[in-house]
Amino acid sequence: MRAVPLPDSNTLEPASGALVRDLRRVPIHPDYWYPLAWSRELKRGKTLGVRFAGEPIVLVRTESGAVYALEDRCAHRQVPLHAGVVAGETLRCCYHGWTYDCSSGRCVDVPYLGRERLPNGVRAYPCREAHGLIFVFPGDATRADERPFPLLASADDRGYKTRRFGREVKCHYSFMHENLMDMNHQFLHRKQMGQMRARCVGRRRGDDWVEVDYTFARMEGKQPVGEALVFGSSKKPGDQANKSVMTVRTGYPYQTLQIRSSEGTLVMDLWIVYVPLDAAQRTNRTFGLLSIRKPGVPFALDLAWPLLVWFTERIFGEDRWIVEREQEAHDEQGADWNHEVFPVINELRDLLRQCGARTVIPIREVDDVR
Amino acid sequence: MRAVPLPDSNTLEPASGALVRDLRRVPIHPDYWYPLAWSRELKRGKTLGVRFAGEPIVLVRTESGAVYALEDRCAHRQVPLHAGVVAGETLRCCYHGWTYDCSSGRCVDVPYLGRERLPNGVRAYPCREAHGLIFVFPGDATRADERPFPLLASADDRGYKTRRFGREVKCHYSFMHENLMDMNHQFLHRKQMGQMRARCVGRRRGDDWVEVDYTFARMEGKQPVGEALVFGSSKKPGDQANKSVMTVRTGYPYQTLQIRSSEGTLVMDLWIVYVPLDAAQRTNRTFGLLSIRKPGVPFALDLAWPLLVWFTERIFGEDRWIVEREQEAHDEQGADWNHEVFPVINELRDLLRQCGARTVIPIREVDDVR
Amino acid sequence: MRAVPLPDSNTLEPASGALVRDLRRVPIHPDYWYPLAWSRELKRGKTLGVRFAGEPIVLVRTESGAVYALEDRCAHRQVPLHAGVVAGETLRCCYHGWTYDCSSGRCVDVPYLGRERLPNGVRAYPCREAHGLIFVFPGDATRADERPFPLLASADDRGYKTRRFGREVKCHYSFMHENLMDMNHQFLHRKQMGQMRARCVGRRRGDDWVEVDYTFARMEGKQPVGEALVFGSSKKPGDQANKSVMTVRTGYPYQTLQIRSSEGTLVMDLWIVYVPLDAAQRTNRTFGLLSIRKPGVPFALDLAWPLLVWFTERIFGEDRWIVEREQEAHDEQGADWNHEVFPVINELRDLLRQCGARTVIPIREVDDVR
Repeated sequence: MRAVPLPDSNTLEPASGALVRDLRRVPIHPDYWYPLAWSRELKRGKTLGVRFAGEPIVLVRTESGAVYALEDRCAHRQVPLHAGVVAGETLRCCYHGWTYDCSSGRCVDVPYLGRERLPNGVRAYPCREAHGLIFVFPGDATRADERPFPLLASADDRGYKTRRFGREVKCHYSFMHENLMDMNHQFLHRKQMGQMRARCVGRRRGDDWVEVDYTFARMEGKQPVGEALVFGSSKKPGDQANKSVMTVRTGYPYQTLQIRSSEGTLVMDLWIVYVPLDAAQRTNRTFGLLSIRKPGVPFALDLAWPLLVWFTERIFGEDRWIVEREQEAHDEQGADWNHEVFPVINELRDLLRQCGARTVIPIREVDDVR
Repeated sequence: MRAVPLPDSNTLEPASGALVRDLRRVPIHPDYWYPLAWSRELKRGKTLGVRFAGEPIVLVRTESGAVYALEDRCAHRQVPLHAGVVAGETLRCCYHGWTYDCSSGRCVDVPYLGRERLPNGVRAYPCREAHGLIFVFPGDATRADERPFPLLASADDRGYKTRRFGREVKCHYSFMHENLMDMNHQFLHRKQMGQMRARCVGRRRGDDWVEVDYTFARMEGKQPVGEALVFGSSKKPGDQANKSVMTVRTGYPYQTLQIRSSEGTLVMDLWIVYVPLDAAQRTNRTFGLLSIRKPGVPFALDLAWPLLVWFTERIFGEDRWIVEREQEAHDEQGADWNHEVFPVINELRDLLRQCGARTVIPIREVDDVR
Repeated sequence: MRAVPLPDSNTLEPASGALVRDLRRVPIHPDYWYPLAWSRELKRGKTLGVRFAGEPIVLVRTESGAVYALEDRCAHRQVPLHAGVVAGETLRCCYHGWTYDCSSGRCVDVPYLGRERLPNGVRAYPCREAHGLIFVFPGDATRADERPFPLLASADDRGYKTRRFGREVKCHYSFMHENLMDMNHQFLHRKQMGQMRARCVGRRRGDDWVEVDYTFARMEGKQPVGEALVFGSSKKPGDQANKSVMTVRTGYPYQTLQIRSSEGTLVMDLWIVYVPLDAAQRTNRTFGLLSIRKPGVPFALDLAWPLLVWFTERIFGEDRWIVEREQEAHDEQGADWNHEVFPVINELRDLLRQCGARTVIPIREVDDVR
């Protein structure tokens, strides 16, 4: 971990914004491991058609149980291979029966053509299954091995109970990162959380990460039960004793949110990633793993679980609603008109710009015509 | 009232149409008072998000009951302020709690920022409530006071009963003006009105208005009951005696339709305006007030009211259908292919072009691709 | 019939594809007779609004029972004439009552204008009714008489029972031709047909036609009942005796599929055409007539008919699904990435390019933005 000096936020994003790339047009960098589906979505001998930033990819679980990822277009007539038939360790296109080896993508049979004249096959992507997720490396395959694979320690730890959740959200991934990292947005969740105020108590930055620490104080009202489960219970409004610390971190391209008790115990551990689905990267699929440390009393957490599910769904629903409104505003305005005053967020935006792909997402101004 | 000489319609809209602006691409002029909502739509302590020609505007009725209009985008992250919370005479954004003064739009609080560093606020629009409508002046605010405010005399007169109605219609506002002003379109309403023939008996024009007088003759069939309520009953087909006169007037940007009996009594008085909702001005929200003079017999009009509502809804529905077809044709053809032969309408088009904004609505030809 | 030498498929569509027009952007040639509706869709005294490649056309059956085709836009305000009223041999626009002669398109009345000042009318198209279809000649009307009118011999022969079918399919017409002509796509219908393998046993080409012969062998499984009805029953898998021959022919712009028994009897005769609806020609309406030779036993075919309907609907549904996926791929890729290895299909594509209109369909790359 290397802490860098923090420039003033105004330096990061000058008023003469012309020199700064519009973050909402920065494509996510493809040279990382991205989850494209939950393991349970892909049955043995079946396929699943998914997308990464507009690229169609077919996930295949062959009869041996192994998982592969191929370009989801038959080399012949470009129809989706996910409508095909899994046969042993090959995938056969549903239309004219062209057959591909799942691990290499090589075309191994065209029923009406001699074997000596077989055409080229389709692209195969590096693919790994872990933590109940199917990860694909959509970028330069030669970099797949060197790139660190996500570690989800709490999700694999029996001391924690983990909820897997997620949905499609109609916005650029950067709005998701900013939403989670700016805890001043507690006001959005006032109906679920009561009047809470976040206080930023520290921040750090490295080459490909940025993190920020918060403490919270209750302004008024009673602590809701759902929140007590996640944050631990606190006795009185404005309680400054027994302080938990929340750390939100973007370690490109993933994000984590961890809550530690004043004794340093990790009581909550969220790992989350926002995978662009369409070429314009205006829709992402969110994959989240929320791990809660089991309390001393056996089954207490299991009993409370439905409440926690309900509570987190409400919070997630509110966040989804607001980031989709942010994206709509950007679509209409055709540019980023944000006036960000919180240094943490300006730093995060700087990071996402630096780590993103070097190309630019082409956009049309939506309101030109309608 | 000043009458100007009427040029020949061919001069107004020459065959070499290249020199004439396409009326369907002329934006409505923003320096007028436009109703953006009915008063009853906005409760005390609540907000209402509306649009004027693509501009998002939030209407706020504060706890004092006063009504204000602000830009409907938080200065911070551009999310809609109409999702915010009214507190006293301020409006607080739902996301991070930035707070605005409703009358000036000034930002008066950012919960996590010192008061000395408050950012700029949002635009405030002149706003007035009258006749059950909330009017906003979306253009140059310095011109709001000098611009005459609409007078709706009959709607405020106890001698008349007034129906408030309206809907979204998917067309440029100019099609609405032309539809109402060209009474030769009675053929469209043949199922509701029977075979009526309009006769144009006079027209006048001023700088920012044009008006036309009609009388009507029934060609065949019986007069429907609904129509008798509006036009007064007439005994026989082709009845030339006891003639009512209808005057249709566009006094930019509003329109009125008045029917006077042969004795000069104003028996029907319609005031109507078509407010563009989207930036392309391909959709308008219609606000209409239809005032009918109460007959001598008490409650007779109240008893007949449901029939009148049904009758006018049918007429309005037919008009809506046809103007949306006109807009569709323009969208496909990418230009105005109309071949107008009625001088009144060519004059009206000339007026709408002259009074409209000087900019041009950009369009795409819809059928290029699909 | 003139047989031309067949160049190698690689010559027809070189790897350096730059010089070859993208077939999916070749408009269908308008100088042919196209069916635009089934006769039963157009009642006496009624109209029907249809489209040919984006051109709106109104079909009218006047009170005499004759059928006419006019431009479906009133010359006045461009609204659809199909909403109008048929009066004798004229059609009256629903809006202001402009009236057109159905056979010439000439404007014969504007109710509020003198007869001496009548404006020009609308375009009239050559129109003929045959075989339960209404045919229109949308191109250069002076060529209508010289162009051969489709002959549907089996449909008019009492020795055959004919099914009329069709649907809208969201793809360029060329995908439909290729689908039917490439019988290697039997794999797509494996659930309906079992494992069948097509063998190409001959092909021929002329100036504006191409045709190919197939025989079929069953690889495994039992012959379904529905198929037996169409192809005739065969006793054993891989049965080489008693061979039927299927001939698929594109005689521009129509297509036929005929099955002849080994004795040379025509047992099945399909005539089919794909009429572009929108200007981009990304949607077509399919009109098909499937004639089955009646067997010796009276009523046997009638009893089996519901099964045949079900069977052909399933097949047609699968074909529709796959060609729409082909179109989607083309829309996303913005070009034709097909890698066709079957010479028959390369020849067909060459023919469709040569016979098509000389203009180019403009396209936008769909995935640029969404």
